[in-house]
Amino acid sequence: MRVSELGEQGLIELLTERLPRPVAETWIGDDAAVFPAPSERLVLTTDTMVEGIDFDLSYASGADVGWKALAVNVSDIAAMGAEPSKAVITVCLPPDTEVSFVDDMITGLVEAASGYGVDLVGGDISAASEITVGIALVGSGSNAPWLRSGARPGDSICVTGALGGSYTGLQALSADPGATGEAVRRHLRPDARLSEARALGGVGISAAIDVSDGLAIDLGRLLSASRAGCEIDSGGIPVDAAASATLEAALYGGEDFELLFTLPPSEVGEAASLVAGCGTVVTEIGRVTSGAPTLDGLPLDRHEERSWDHLRNR
Amino acid sequence: MRVSELGEQGLIELLTERLPRPVAETWIGDDAAVFPAPSERLVLTTDTMVEGIDFDLSYASGADVGWKALAVNVSDIAAMGAEPSKAVITVCLPPDTEVSFVDDMITGLVEAASGYGVDLVGGDISAASEITVGIALVGSGSNAPWLRSGARPGDSICVTGALGGSYTGLQALSADPGATGEAVRRHLRPDARLSEARALGGVGISAAIDVSDGLAIDLGRLLSASRAGCEIDSGGIPVDAAASATLEAALYGGEDFELLFTLPPSEVGEAASLVAGCGTVVTEIGRVTSGAPTLDGLPLDRHEERSWDHLRNR
Repeated sequence: MRVSELGEQGLIELLTERLPRPVAETWIGDDAAVFPAPSERLVLTTDTMVEGIDFDLSYASGADVGWKALAVNVSDIAAMGAEPSKAVITVCLPPDTEVSFVDDMITGLVEAASGYGVDLVGGDISAASEITVGIALVGSGSNAPWLRSGARPGDSICVTGALGGSYTGLQALSADPGATGEAVRRHLRPDARLSEARALGGVGISAAIDVSDGLAIDLGRLLSASRAGCEIDSGGIPVDAAASATLEAALYGGEDFELLFTLPPSEVGEAASLVAGCGTVVTEIGRVTSGAPTLDGLPLDRHEERSWDHLRNR
Repeated sequence: MRVSELGEQGLIELLTERLPRPVAETWIGDDAAVFPAPSERLVLTTDTMVEGIDFDLSYASGADVGWKALAVNVSDIAAMGAEPSKAVITVCLPPDTEVSFVDDMITGLVEAASGYGVDLVGGDISAASEITVGIALVGSGSNAPWLRSGARPGDSICVTGALGGSYTGLQALSADPGATGEAVRRHLRPDARLSEARALGGVGISAAIDVSDGLAIDLGRLLSASRAGCEIDSGGIPVDAAASATLEAALYGGEDFELLFTLPPSEVGEAASLVAGCGTVVTEIGRVTSGAPTLDGLPLDRHEERSWDHLRNR
């Protein structure tokens, strides 16, 4: 059955039925959702996945798309040192989309929402010529959110996990839509580093960002916001060996959703120890400086041009 | 110049430059926006406009699209008796979109945001094969939000303003993209009834919804949520004469974004008097009953089938 046969109202009913019901709050079914503010300080982010740009139906299932659409938003909230709370979903569907795809997508969304402790409280459905799944996510901010702008010369630069796996998986899927393995899993079902961010609440993070566009560009953004530089040695960058990634994929691939953060060098050991409790490694990859951002002695922005740009790469 | 030439980073800079800067809050430029919760109870809604479905570039300017994308979300918040506060924007653009369109769209967005007291605090940009502009809007809820489910038998059913103008304008634009006049203005630049909703805070609203899909379907939704019926006489429905609308456009056209609400009959006079202060008329169009919803004695759902359905109508 296709969504055009089911109709908008039928689709809303399908979605509503599949989503957990609220207790003493108003979620789906009114003009807006109503709920208690999760804290006195809020965080708000939005990120959208577009068919043909962010995923391809030849290799991604509905559940993959639903999972990732939520996870990438949770990653942004985690990178602020905040807690995700309530989300609204925007789904645009070509009329000939199979209802089973939508059903599958909700399964992935609900699975991710449950895993990250997010309530799906509303949304919007529209027709379109390609599938897009957008999330807007409200969370509880801390009184000292991790901004990109807080890095200070002398701080250590660290990253969770390993990089380049997602891009390696995408390459594998592009060559063979039936490809499997660790790299493919990292691309289709990335894990937001929420537990790791919670653990890092125990140390003095000065700045953070999630690695969504590649280490080179995201580090550049953090340093640019902090008006600082860095010295990075590419030999120290944790390349995702389990996913057979290369250094190039780690630097320019993107979508790894690891946390890139800065903190005083004296706290790196404690940070690593706290995050080890989540089964995740922390690697110190360099230092913040007052000079220019450099990678192996070369200006970082010379590397940036090779990173992903949604609008140019089409 | 086209957006593919400007690139994602250039486009983000263009947007950031055009949007008002925050004072002591973090908006655009980090992984998420951070700001104080506007109240202890929040409302959250999202609505997206898709090219070819919700607007057509043959007649809508970028400023029209930007304005309307925000106004329709404010309308949802107003229909909860709540105050809009912070918004994030999702913009999907074909690479050959003119940068001037985007610039124009921001003008309309900023104009609407300023008019409705909304801060634009972040967003997401992606490529896509058609233009979509989505907004997610957080607001301050009251302790007694106007749900759809609160209508009680005996309540009066009222509507602000007049209906059918937007659809009439759309018909005019479809026939002649250069059409002008009141109906066209209502379609391209609808006004969210925020001032009117604030004024109605002075009476005991039992249920409310905004008229986005046509009076017949939206009244049906309110009554269905309230498990109640109604008696409506079509002769009493305020048809938008200034826009030369017909009763059919009022019932099935949609996108008028008037407030449809219920309250005790003894408070209708006071409601009309309060809303008159905004220069807007309130019309009592019928009563809530414990029977079936009827219009001119016929079941309301017999009329519903003629309403707008995003996915079927393509």
